[in-house]
Amino acid sequence: MSNDNEDLETLITLMAKLPGLGPRSARRAVLHLIKKRALVLMPLADAMHRVGSTVRECLNCGNVCTKDLCDICQSEKRANGQIAVVEDVADLWAMERSSVFKGRYHVLGGTLSALDAIGPEELRIPKLIDRVASEHISEVILALGATIDGQTTAHYIADQLPHVNVTSLAQGVPVGGELDYLDDGTISAALNARKTL
Amino acid sequence: MSNDNEDLETLITLMAKLPGLGPRSARRAVLHLIKKRALVLMPLADAMHRVGSTVRECLNCGNVCTKDLCDICQSEKRANGQIAVVEDVADLWAMERSSVFKGRYHVLGGTLSALDAIGPEELRIPKLIDRVASEHISEVILALGATIDGQTTAHYIADQLPHVNVTSLAQGVPVGGELDYLDDGTISAALNARKTL
Repeated sequence: MSNDNEDLETLITLMAKLPGLGPRSARRAVLHLIKKRALVLMPLADAMHRVGSTVRECLNCGNVCTKDLCDICQSEKRANGQIAVVEDVADLWAMERSSVFKGRYHVLGGTLSALDAIGPEELRIPKLIDRVASEHISEVILALGATIDGQTTAHYIADQLPHVNVTSLAQGVPVGGELDYLDDGTISAALNARKTL
Repeated sequence: MSNDNEDLETLITLMAKLPGLGPRSARRAVLHLIKKRALVLMPLADAMHRVGSTVRECLNCGNVCTKDLCDICQSEKRANGQIAVVEDVADLWAMERSSVFKGRYHVLGGTLSALDAIGPEELRIPKLIDRVASEHISEVILALGATIDGQTTAHYIADQLPHVNVTSLAQGVPVGGELDYLDDGTISAALNARKTL
């Protein structure tokens, strides 16, 4: 490409670092931004500046927010004695979109992983144990991924919380799923957890 | 998602407008940005501001640049009498990456389209005709897409330039392409334009 503009090159390089964009789609996105300067480029730059300077982690649960405590941790309505343990903020947002869960969250920030040397101290697990004691929690719902690391983390947390009811999300056929396309593990989990109609 | 932060919502909405990103990947990208605040988010916001305030169109060819004329139009080396007509800046960048073409460019900004009511006046075609007269152009290379609109535009431009040599890119088997996967049109074009070895 024509290199008379270092700023353009920098922008393309930075855009290419976003998940879901590579060098080619970053170039496409940047050309789109230049075409829609007033409508998209400038508002986007401003929004990034604002988010970069205001957003931080909720001191209690690890959600992203602009104050010391996020809206969910501040709301008394959400103090129903349930706490959902999720891996990261994206999972918290996914749970909130379903708007079925009415309790509070605890964002671990990852899963235990021997390979990556991630232990309980790296994961906000001590804070979870504190919260269970101090927030009158009756049930800890482990909403972690059905991966090996996720399940290891779930078992570790359950071991650390002997005096509270620890549950985990059900495994089975996803809504709209066809048996034909499901893997063996899911079918056998769904069969083992079958329910009487 | 948790809505305590309007700025976050705005950022996600704006990111979702980029080509190649939808609402889901925009959320993922925004979480990535928040995690890499110092390394990616702030530099990206700055780069966008700089590009938004400095980048404009080259008055001669329509390339993006920071001055009145882009580097290619300013360089005397590129005044070799050839002019490549491309649809948009992305095509110009693609030609420059191959670094085979040594002449100048002319960016149309689209193709003629009766359906979208895009006529020659919308496309910088009058400027192309001016340039052919004033820049001692010996050959106009039409590097337009092999679509119906692209080919219509190519024929229209060829009609407007009777006193100069107008050529177009060859059609045929792409490098690395397998016949098995090529469409009928490409195979018949490649067969018609066959060359003696």
